[in-house]
Amino acid sequence: MKRHLTLLICMMFLCQWMHAEDGSLLWLRQKGTAATSITSNKTTQTTSIAVNELKNAWKGLPVSLIIKKNKSLCKEGFMIEKKDGNIIVSSPTDKGILYGAYHLLRLQASNPDFKTTLPIIENPTYSLRLLNHWDNLDGTIERGYAGQSLWQWDELPETLSPRYETYARANASIGINGTVLNNVNASPQILSGPYLQKVKALADLFRPYGIRVYLSANFASPMVLGQLDTADPLNKQVIRWWKNKVKEIYQLIPDFGGFLVKANSEGQPGPCDFGRTHAEGANMLADALKPYKGIVMWRAFVYSPNDADRAKQAYQEFKPLDGMFRDNVIIQTKNGPVDFQPREPYSPLFTAIEHTDQMVELQVTQEYLGHSNHIAYLAPMWKEFFEFVPATTLKAIAGVANIGTDINWCGHPFAQSNWYAFGRLAWNPSLTSEEIADEWLKQTFSSKEEFLSPAKQIMLQSHEAVVDYMMPMGLHHLFAWGHHYGPEPWCAIPGARPDWMPSYYHKADAQGIGFDRSSKGSNAVAQYPTALAEKYNQLDTCPEEYILWFHHVAWNHPMKNGQSLWNNLCRHYDRGVQQVRLFQKLWDQTEKYVDEERFYEIQSSLKTQMRDAIWWKDACLLYFQTFSKMPFPTDMERPIHRLDDLKKVNLGISNYECPDEELLNRNR
Amino acid sequence: MKRHLTLLICMMFLCQWMHAEDGSLLWLRQKGTAATSITSNKTTQTTSIAVNELKNAWKGLPVSLIIKKNKSLCKEGFMIEKKDGNIIVSSPTDKGILYGAYHLLRLQASNPDFKTTLPIIENPTYSLRLLNHWDNLDGTIERGYAGQSLWQWDELPETLSPRYETYARANASIGINGTVLNNVNASPQILSGPYLQKVKALADLFRPYGIRVYLSANFASPMVLGQLDTADPLNKQVIRWWKNKVKEIYQLIPDFGGFLVKANSEGQPGPCDFGRTHAEGANMLADALKPYKGIVMWRAFVYSPNDADRAKQAYQEFKPLDGMFRDNVIIQTKNGPVDFQPREPYSPLFTAIEHTDQMVELQVTQEYLGHSNHIAYLAPMWKEFFEFVPATTLKAIAGVANIGTDINWCGHPFAQSNWYAFGRLAWNPSLTSEEIADEWLKQTFSSKEEFLSPAKQIMLQSHEAVVDYMMPMGLHHLFAWGHHYGPEPWCAIPGARPDWMPSYYHKADAQGIGFDRSSKGSNAVAQYPTALAEKYNQLDTCPEEYILWFHHVAWNHPMKNGQSLWNNLCRHYDRGVQQVRLFQKLWDQTEKYVDEERFYEIQSSLKTQMRDAIWWKDACLLYFQTFSKMPFPTDMERPIHRLDDLKKVNLGISNYECPDEELLNRNR
Repeated sequence: MKRHLTLLICMMFLCQWMHAEDGSLLWLRQKGTAATSITSNKTTQTTSIAVNELKNAWKGLPVSLIIKKNKSLCKEGFMIEKKDGNIIVSSPTDKGILYGAYHLLRLQASNPDFKTTLPIIENPTYSLRLLNHWDNLDGTIERGYAGQSLWQWDELPETLSPRYETYARANASIGINGTVLNNVNASPQILSGPYLQKVKALADLFRPYGIRVYLSANFASPMVLGQLDTADPLNKQVIRWWKNKVKEIYQLIPDFGGFLVKANSEGQPGPCDFGRTHAEGANMLADALKPYKGIVMWRAFVYSPNDADRAKQAYQEFKPLDGMFRDNVIIQTKNGPVDFQPREPYSPLFTAIEHTDQMVELQVTQEYLGHSNHIAYLAPMWKEFFEFVPATTLKAIAGVANIGTDINWCGHPFAQSNWYAFGRLAWNPSLTSEEIADEWLKQTFSSKEEFLSPAKQIMLQSHEAVVDYMMPMGLHHLFAWGHHYGPEPWCAIPGARPDWMPSYYHKADAQGIGFDRSSKGSNAVAQYPTALAEKYNQLDTCPEEYILWFHHVAWNHPMKNGQSLWNNLCRHYDRGVQQVRLFQKLWDQTEKYVDEERFYEIQSSLKTQMRDAIWWKDACLLYFQTFSKMPFPTDMERPIHRLDDLKKVNLGISNYECPDEELLNRNR
Repeated sequence: MKRHLTLLICMMFLCQWMHAEDGSLLWLRQKGTAATSITSNKTTQTTSIAVNELKNAWKGLPVSLIIKKNKSLCKEGFMIEKKDGNIIVSSPTDKGILYGAYHLLRLQASNPDFKTTLPIIENPTYSLRLLNHWDNLDGTIERGYAGQSLWQWDELPETLSPRYETYARANASIGINGTVLNNVNASPQILSGPYLQKVKALADLFRPYGIRVYLSANFASPMVLGQLDTADPLNKQVIRWWKNKVKEIYQLIPDFGGFLVKANSEGQPGPCDFGRTHAEGANMLADALKPYKGIVMWRAFVYSPNDADRAKQAYQEFKPLDGMFRDNVIIQTKNGPVDFQPREPYSPLFTAIEHTDQMVELQVTQEYLGHSNHIAYLAPMWKEFFEFVPATTLKAIAGVANIGTDINWCGHPFAQSNWYAFGRLAWNPSLTSEEIADEWLKQTFSSKEEFLSPAKQIMLQSHEAVVDYMMPMGLHHLFAWGHHYGPEPWCAIPGARPDWMPSYYHKADAQGIGFDRSSKGSNAVAQYPTALAEKYNQLDTCPEEYILWFHHVAWNHPMKNGQSLWNNLCRHYDRGVQQVRLFQKLWDQTEKYVDEERFYEIQSSLKTQMRDAIWWKDACLLYFQTFSKMPFPTDMERPIHRLDDLKKVNLGISNYECPDEELLNRNR
């Protein structure tokens, strides 16, 4: 009887615990020992949060939180030191104290010997570390694969979801200090009175966590909301409308961050509609924001279906405007010159713009990396960017969020790591991918070496695997029409924009494959600094991971390993597939160390990733083989699909959806 | 211009040749040199066929065909010798001459040095070498996966399809000398006057090729056709009806072979319906046939949903009747005690019946071996049977045909090899699987070593691969309900016969898996000769390839390699999958040596086989894992499917269909 009771209690506990493990806690899972004393020399909303976080999660020595000047610290910086058996966290600001508290908890979780490393001083590399939400006011998220928008616009400002607070905690814990709430394809309504009340509610809630609110502004807002018949940035009525609107905003939200603007891009209105330049448009907004210390983040993601190579267009349009922007304008440019492809060379704008502040826009949501079905840890990709664009040359950093209403926030448990890694790299771009993975895994899953070793291997190799099975060697934009999930290198929609077709990018023909951007082709290479331009321009010096980005290469061209381009291409695709097979094995090794729910969820999603990897490999290689007419290397795993069958696949999902299992099963 | 013309001519030739290669020529592809002289000392329809075949295909020395007595030869035997620069084929009969001519052509194709091996004497091991067609009168074929029935009943007897002649040639070339035209689930109509006229037309056509016609008889025919109110074999009216019917048949077809009967089996009528034994039923028919030298082939494939282990029932029913059959009755038994599973131990009836003639029924059509989608060369499976049942203990041999209206006869180009191998083994069961594969490949594709080596490797390993990815270690009947193509180990149809459910056979539970047929279980082992019974009865002496046939084995039971049963089971499934991957690679190596059509057709069907192998592995292992609760061996390839998804698969095909690509794609 007693034994049965014990069993019953165990089972109840297990059930409760099992029920609890839905991933909603993110990396904020530590439970403290109540005995520890936390003292603070000043009590604000922000320091109270810090105290509470430590009270809930700190297990060690007494901690004092002290706000004091310290020349070695910038406003958001902090120092952690040991003194007389106590830990002291100090900072010039309460925000820095909060960051210090979170850092202390991170150290506790990730480094058992951290005390020997004290004192530690941390200052953020960028003062602006922003999330961009591509959330629409109707609750959908463009390129969001974790459910609907977090913002319950219908319920705001009266009702505040408890998730907002967790969102703020999570961001603060990794140093994110700004959030652009709405999609860059912006509805003008966000600037309407009722919506600003809702925005204010969120801003008030986020403020103690050190998070400022920003908004994406639709450049035609004065026409839509103000009934003006123009949005010409030089028009006085327009200027006045914006000044008044900005004033209205700051009356509600005194620390409002500013505007993010997608103008004259993919159909969005902008100053060019009125014969003005991007600079004139941005400056008009900047002038309105200036008195309040607000900023304009003006996106350089522009291209149109003209003769020029799409990869060159942002440079062509923005380089001549360099130096013509107000000092509270930052040009926000995607890391690569096309569009968040699995691998791109860096956008040459970063090294070309010299007299205007710049920021990089990274994509945390996996628009082109298997949505929230594939494991693709993106720190290695972002680190690659920083190898070319020194972190110090940027003013700020933004990440397109992967957060939604899904109980685990990001759709895939491992997708949380990209939110985490973005924040950590925004704070300190010199952290290694491995350090961040280690921190995140320990806080999110387990510190056991038996778990860490396989899990970290998966994470660190995952981005390269996706590149390999989707678009290796500089291939890009082979995605299916509409959604950007599956392969469709053959895609040909009658009458569609040529620069939205895969063939525009891969240019496969009987001779070879790849986009000739050398001096013999579109000469996009010339947009890079001379040394790099020369390197990229020559077939034999161009790095092989970019070779089909910059060159149209003959199928039988001998690569560095002595084998043909075709064989190398095949081997990359095959390696990608084999890597996912390995990830499956590695993940299975973690079973004993992971809760059942997340173990099976990830095991299950790896099956999807596995089938997708095969799908990608088969689709791309079988299609390209119709041009190369060359056999697969003899030792390579063979296709299991027929090209004709794959051409019939139609997932039928939108920009706002992640394909679900049933859909994937029905279609493949 | 000249170059263009040459190219044009080449292309025309190529197109014609390409169009020609549809597999319809089977292994009868040799083209002779017209100069060779062929002489025959007697001209009959049969010897004329021999002369013509040689004229069309012989490339060498002059050949003489001589009919003469020779004590070392049985009626159908032949001798091939070299004399004075000529080749002489001799036989006591013109049928033997025909076989000799075909053998000479086979030697020409398969052994360039055959002349050094002369003289050769060949006698068939069995005098009865029969195909069984499970063809229905409506044109469907039960378990046929190569289109519709060859027999155009609507057009017979007036119109004779040219395919009948090719069918006869193909059979004669491998020594098949009898064909049962209709399904064992027989329509009584086959014995009606109009149908007998049709049968006569076929018999007349096949006769010169040495092929006798047989029919499957429905035991209730006297009731259906003769309006009798019984089919009781001891009833005088019934006896008279059959005597008259047999007489009618022999008036039309003087060399009619006899009847094949499926009685009291799976719903077919039989003597037991009238309180009589199988022997009484068979003897009544045998008496009617006796005056004409006709025979009865009485099938021992009987089982009913009673308490007894299905694998024991045929023995239980037939062993007591041993010695009670007329001497022109042959008991026809399937090779295994259940039903043509990928691997079964031999049916113990073969060693138990001592006083009645027996014949084995092998299945050429791949009912349980991937239909005509998978490569499964069956000679190794049949050779396994002969290791247990000495060929000399059998009177005859029958093979359930895999032939249909498909242009390539058998659905899959490699399925032709099973027709071929069946004939060759029926002639000489001591031929090795490799010898037969070698002969068939050389005649059907190419003699080039570069082709033969990979192709032969595929063939010789193919059966074991199917066993591995479908039902290794003695597992059996895990097939989906209705069709026998995909896996459905979980199958549970409410109210269905338990012995038609996979769980009846695998008996997986928390402890282990397998059917306990040891002395502690159903004691089916006792039906085997003592030495074998003892070997099978002990878990540690039972061969591992039969272990789950004879034992319910604990998941963690250590096998010979020291690993658990579960791990071994996993490794078998995985090996099956890896083997198909290898077959894909091996086949791709043959591209240069094979015509484009067959190369791509086989390459394409290997993709289906590959996906099916993964499907089988995932379905069986994921399902059995719900019982074993044990992890997959760490180095094994991981599943790519979810059990829940696989449980939803419903191919929706009948007993008469092979699943096509679209269906397979839609469902998986």
